[in-house]
Amino acid sequence: MIEKKQLIDQTISLLRDCLPADSSFIGLHEPLFEGREWEYVRDCLDTGWVSTAGQYVGRFEAALQEYTGARRAIAVVNGTAALHVCLLLAGVEAGEEVLIPSLTFVATANAVRYCGAVPHFVEIENVTLGVDAAKLADYLETIAELKSDGLFNRLTGRRIRALVPMHVFGHPADLDALAQIADRYQLVLIEDAAESLGSFYKGKHMGTLGKLSALSFNGNKIITTGGGGAILTDDDALADRAKHLTTTAKLPHRWAFYHDETGYNYRMPNLNAALGCAQLEKLPSYVERKRLLAQLYEERFKDNPYLSFMTEPSYARSNYWLNAVILSPETAAYRDDLLEATNDAGIMTRPIWTPMHLMPPYQDCPAMDLSLTEAYYGRVINIPSSVKLGDRHGE
Amino acid sequence: MIEKKQLIDQTISLLRDCLPADSSFIGLHEPLFEGREWEYVRDCLDTGWVSTAGQYVGRFEAALQEYTGARRAIAVVNGTAALHVCLLLAGVEAGEEVLIPSLTFVATANAVRYCGAVPHFVEIENVTLGVDAAKLADYLETIAELKSDGLFNRLTGRRIRALVPMHVFGHPADLDALAQIADRYQLVLIEDAAESLGSFYKGKHMGTLGKLSALSFNGNKIITTGGGGAILTDDDALADRAKHLTTTAKLPHRWAFYHDETGYNYRMPNLNAALGCAQLEKLPSYVERKRLLAQLYEERFKDNPYLSFMTEPSYARSNYWLNAVILSPETAAYRDDLLEATNDAGIMTRPIWTPMHLMPPYQDCPAMDLSLTEAYYGRVINIPSSVKLGDRHGE
Repeated sequence: MIEKKQLIDQTISLLRDCLPADSSFIGLHEPLFEGREWEYVRDCLDTGWVSTAGQYVGRFEAALQEYTGARRAIAVVNGTAALHVCLLLAGVEAGEEVLIPSLTFVATANAVRYCGAVPHFVEIENVTLGVDAAKLADYLETIAELKSDGLFNRLTGRRIRALVPMHVFGHPADLDALAQIADRYQLVLIEDAAESLGSFYKGKHMGTLGKLSALSFNGNKIITTGGGGAILTDDDALADRAKHLTTTAKLPHRWAFYHDETGYNYRMPNLNAALGCAQLEKLPSYVERKRLLAQLYEERFKDNPYLSFMTEPSYARSNYWLNAVILSPETAAYRDDLLEATNDAGIMTRPIWTPMHLMPPYQDCPAMDLSLTEAYYGRVINIPSSVKLGDRHGE
Repeated sequence: MIEKKQLIDQTISLLRDCLPADSSFIGLHEPLFEGREWEYVRDCLDTGWVSTAGQYVGRFEAALQEYTGARRAIAVVNGTAALHVCLLLAGVEAGEEVLIPSLTFVATANAVRYCGAVPHFVEIENVTLGVDAAKLADYLETIAELKSDGLFNRLTGRRIRALVPMHVFGHPADLDALAQIADRYQLVLIEDAAESLGSFYKGKHMGTLGKLSALSFNGNKIITTGGGGAILTDDDALADRAKHLTTTAKLPHRWAFYHDETGYNYRMPNLNAALGCAQLEKLPSYVERKRLLAQLYEERFKDNPYLSFMTEPSYARSNYWLNAVILSPETAAYRDDLLEATNDAGIMTRPIWTPMHLMPPYQDCPAMDLSLTEAYYGRVINIPSSVKLGDRHGE
């Protein structure tokens, strides 16, 4: 068994091999603006179109459609708003349950709550840290009952409406298997694709396999709009409703303000969409650079018995949005000291999110056995992943 | 009685007297960027700080505090989000009622719904089109009962938690009278100050008299951040909770993601705050220019028996955010033709909002007699109000 200090020194040394030597601080995921960002943003300021009108929202949506292959994209104010609207459009009602992983960013669970619904936590598998389809199928056999009007939780009596897999750090969960479960149990499949713009599952872009999907363009993502997100769907009726709901449900009219339902102020401002248009033009190159950095990490960490670098599953091509190393079970106890030491050394690291079922707002929610979730929570560490770091490969 | 065509011709002629002759189309409220917008926005792009971190959010909040005199300002993603959080912080719970005017932008009612609460519509007075304090007091005497644990609606049995006056078009509602009612009936007073940045009630800035208040910086407002809003309060504990709730309720920690309640992704991105910092520097001059345009309209319309120009109440200094003329009762029937003709002539006009109680999502909500609301709905027309139009005065 390795000593703590030795593991820490070894890890910092391995990370330094992959990272620029001339930086006093290396962040986790910094945005990169090297395209037409200023040109498009300046155009907004020069023309005065920064808010709810202007050409960039439509252009950004069209470019997202072209890149992802989704029939429709609806730009919104952030990924949380995108998830919220996906759930509403899936028909999630107050008092129903939604199956989500516990190992996710808190937005997934929050969005379920915004609908007045209850998150029901499901277990992950150990390749992508995404939802484990086989375990989920077994679990539903035990606790759920399929009736003529949908799937019901036998223990709580509540309807289970939707299944929301999340593609952790950009690595695609096994969607074919999950889609089969969704079909069999009449669950609406919603992809939380917040982290996986630029990732592909068997040749299809993430967010195009669920009925509805949510993207995010927060500052930490592979491309950013400052704050922003998008809903993807192939269903025109759902897309039209998404646009309507996210723009205060106002009926089109030359002058009248008439709203036919309770809508949301979730539209993406034109200023932010302008940034997004420029960023999206660079996305293919950003994915390549993320993948080059990941390749370098993979090579350096490949013979390490204590830290394994997380790689894409065999069926997918990942954007490697956020790189991660996984401590071996016996070195898990060193996690916090390793985090402390790497951050002190100017190399930003952090653990994976605290699982939802271990935090106050969600600790009383229904859940299947989450042993693997809890085990990985103690062992996964994210390491620097900014696009620009991919430039060093081969130097 | 004037003929319709004559009224239309006369109105277009009066408007043209006040507006630039060389424009083929004059909008209602266009933003103006003539300060340091480019410099600040460019700084965000150059430094990479466009999203959740960066200096501009803090600077914008500090500048808002200085301008308004509010002890604390919390920048958020839009005015709707600001209202939502104000209501949550006021303690509004599902199944309670909130007193709001029916004559408002739909965000006021939507925000109540987001809390699972019920809008209860109150009548306006005819000076500011804001909540009528005297009528409200009489009404509450009849339908409400003050118990040891708050005010209750005798008819529905629901608790009435808060009162949300809205400052229509920037004109301050009579807050002293409304604050008295809030005190007497144990209602939390929340100002919907979305339209009234730059307006003052007896020397105090709007949004500083309620316990909590909401501002908006949408593209149509006197200053804009693309999309944005802010919460104002003098209460440090509420302000701290507002910041916490609007930033996903994450506890501060060097690396851990731990959220102690269901929060919201409502923070304003740094990019948008940068725009706001530059805009706020120009606000005093923008208010003056709005007031100059209003003065011109007031002079031109002062002898008109059919169209009266809406002016600030005697106790206030208004930002004249959005100018309005009010048709006399006998010419109200000409409203739609007048809207059609002015818009066809390239002068943008529109009617005041459809009252909430006349739209599907809110037609079944409790309401007092709303005769005046309905009467003004048919008579109020907004006319061009952009800041830049104030430059023509005196030419």
